[in-house]
Amino acid sequence: MNPQKIAVLGPGSWGTALSQVLNDNGHEVRIWGNNSEQMSEINEHHTNKRYFKDVVLDEKIKAFENLEEALTDVDAVLFVVPTKVTRLVAQQVAQVLKNKVHLLHASKGLEQGTHARISSILEEEIPASYRGEVVVVSGPSHAEETIVRDITLISAASKDHAEAKYAQNLFSNDYFRLYTNTDVVGVETAGALKNIIAVGAGALHGLGFGDNAKAAIITRGLTEITRLGVALGAEPLTYSGLSGVGDLIVTGTSIHSRNWRAGDALGRGEKLEEIERNMGMVIEGVSTTKAAYELAQQLKIEMPITETIYRVLYENVDAKTAILELMRREAREENEFNQL
Amino acid sequence: MNPQKIAVLGPGSWGTALSQVLNDNGHEVRIWGNNSEQMSEINEHHTNKRYFKDVVLDEKIKAFENLEEALTDVDAVLFVVPTKVTRLVAQQVAQVLKNKVHLLHASKGLEQGTHARISSILEEEIPASYRGEVVVVSGPSHAEETIVRDITLISAASKDHAEAKYAQNLFSNDYFRLYTNTDVVGVETAGALKNIIAVGAGALHGLGFGDNAKAAIITRGLTEITRLGVALGAEPLTYSGLSGVGDLIVTGTSIHSRNWRAGDALGRGEKLEEIERNMGMVIEGVSTTKAAYELAQQLKIEMPITETIYRVLYENVDAKTAILELMRREAREENEFNQL
Repeated sequence: MNPQKIAVLGPGSWGTALSQVLNDNGHEVRIWGNNSEQMSEINEHHTNKRYFKDVVLDEKIKAFENLEEALTDVDAVLFVVPTKVTRLVAQQVAQVLKNKVHLLHASKGLEQGTHARISSILEEEIPASYRGEVVVVSGPSHAEETIVRDITLISAASKDHAEAKYAQNLFSNDYFRLYTNTDVVGVETAGALKNIIAVGAGALHGLGFGDNAKAAIITRGLTEITRLGVALGAEPLTYSGLSGVGDLIVTGTSIHSRNWRAGDALGRGEKLEEIERNMGMVIEGVSTTKAAYELAQQLKIEMPITETIYRVLYENVDAKTAILELMRREAREENEFNQL
Repeated sequence: MNPQKIAVLGPGSWGTALSQVLNDNGHEVRIWGNNSEQMSEINEHHTNKRYFKDVVLDEKIKAFENLEEALTDVDAVLFVVPTKVTRLVAQQVAQVLKNKVHLLHASKGLEQGTHARISSILEEEIPASYRGEVVVVSGPSHAEETIVRDITLISAASKDHAEAKYAQNLFSNDYFRLYTNTDVVGVETAGALKNIIAVGAGALHGLGFGDNAKAAIITRGLTEITRLGVALGAEPLTYSGLSGVGDLIVTGTSIHSRNWRAGDALGRGEKLEEIERNMGMVIEGVSTTKAAYELAQQLKIEMPITETIYRVLYENVDAKTAILELMRREAREENEFNQL
C-alpha cells in the first residue's frame, strides 16, 4: 500500500496510539484536536503526557488545531472523539472537506437521546459523495499496550468489504492485526454495550465478589447485550468475536479500564457525580447504560444486568442490594434469547 | 425437593466444594475416594487440607473408601474424578450399583486415545437400566470460591431436560445457581477444550505479553474450539455461555487456574515434565491439547492455537518462537468457521 495521508480526529489515548500505529506503517498522520496547549505539546515536545507520561512520539506526527488544514488532501479520516461530540465534529468536517475520503472511526458509544450508532451519525452528517462506506475498528485494545507496540488484534467492519480491507491494510503490521467483518451493527453495538458489563464486573469487584461471580456477570451480560444487538440488526456471532467477547475480557477483567474502575467505585459506595469528578475522563459505559436501558424499554427486551446498573447509576438504588438481588434471580434455561 | 442421598466420587477440590453445596442444601453426602488417609481425615477432622487449608467441612459429610458402601441406596451419583480414571471408576460403579440412579458428572476432559467425552464413557460403562440420562455440570467455578460460598453460576446439561432440572434443583441455593441446557456435547466439549486456551493465555503471560494479546488469544481460541465443538455436534451458542466464554474468562485470566499456571510456566521456558512434577495436580489442559490436536487432524479442522500449544508441549518447539509466529499470522476475515 502506498503511504496515505490520514487525519486522526481526537487526541485522546486511543487516537494517539492509533496515530503511532499509522506512522509506524509509513503513513502521514495529522492529529486534530481543539486544545491548543495539547496540540503544541505534540508538535514541540512530541508527547501527550495527559495520557502517556513516558512516551515520545515520532516527530513526523503533526498536530493541528485548524480542522480545514488537517483535512487538506487527506486520503482517510479517522474519528476517535467522544461519542457526545461526534455529531458536532462530523458537521464541521462536512463543511471543510474538499475531496472524497475513506471514513473510519474507533469510538465506542451510542448517542444520547437518538441512541444512534457512531457510523449512523457519520453517514447522516457527511454526504455520501465525500466518503466511502464507514469502517469501524473495534476490539480488545488498551491504548497503554498498543502505544508500547504490544500485540493487539481487533476487527474492522464496513458494509463495503473493500473499505474494511483498506483499513486492514492501513493498520496491519507486526504487532497490530485487523480482522475484516461486514457486520457494522454488530461490531459497533458490541463495542458500545460491552462497557455496561464492564461497569457491572467492576461493581462486583468493588462489592468484594470473586472470579466466579465476575465470570458469570460477564457471560450473562454478553447474553443480554447480544439480545439487544440482534434486535438492532447485529449477527449474534459477532458478539463472540474480538469486538464482543474479546473486548469484554479486556474491559471486564482489567483495572486499566475506566468503565471497570467506575463500576468498582460504584461497588465501593461512591455516587455517580463523585466518580465522574474523580475520573476526569469520559466514561462511555455510564451514558451507554442509559441509552441501552431506554432502547431495551422501547424494544421490550429483557436486560436485567443493564437495568440493575441503570438503577444504581441513575435512580440512587443501593449497589449491594441491587446486585445481590440480580445474582440471586431464579435460575433459568441457558441460551434463551428472550429471557435471562 | 426431598433430601437426597448422593455419592460424590472424587475427593479433589471441586468434588469437595460440590459436596459442601449439596450438604448446605440438606442432602446426605458421601464422598468416595481411594486414599484411606484422606478419607479418615474427612471423617475424623472434617478437613481436606491438601486442597483447602482453612476449611472445616460439616460433620454430616461422610467419606467412604468402600465404593459399594458409598453407593448403597443412593439417589444420585456425581462423578468428579480425573478424566483418565473415569472409565475405570465407571466400571467399578457398574459392578456394585444395586438401584437406578440419577447420574451426574463435573469433570472436564477428553479420554486419551478414544477422544471420548465423559458422558459417553459413563453411558458405555453403566447400563441404561441403572441410570437416567447423564447430566454434566460445568461452568466458571474456582473451587476455592465456591467453598467459601461466593456466588457461582454454572450450566447443567442433559439430553433429558428433566434430569437437567433435577440437577438444578439439587444444587441451587442462595450462592450457587444452575442454568439448564440440553446441549450435552456443547457443554462437555466447551469445558474440556477451554483448558487448551487457558494454557495458551498463561503462556502469553509467561512470555510477557499484555492484556490485548491475551484477550486476542482467548477470543480467537474460542473461535477455533467452537469450530471443533460444532464438528463434534455442539451448538455454537453454547460456546458463548457459562461453560464456554464464562469458564474461559475464569480459567484464561486467573492465576488460580492450574491450566493457566502450566501455560505460564511453559512461557517462562519450563519443560512439560518439570511443570507436571512441580504442579503435583492433574493438568487436564495438557492431555486435552493432545486429544484436540488429534481430533482436529482427523476431522481436518484448522486449530492454529491448539496446534501451536501441542508443538510446544509435545514436540519441544520453543514457546516464544512458536507463539510469536502464531500471533503474527496473516490477518483474515472474522467469523469464518473454516479458517482462522
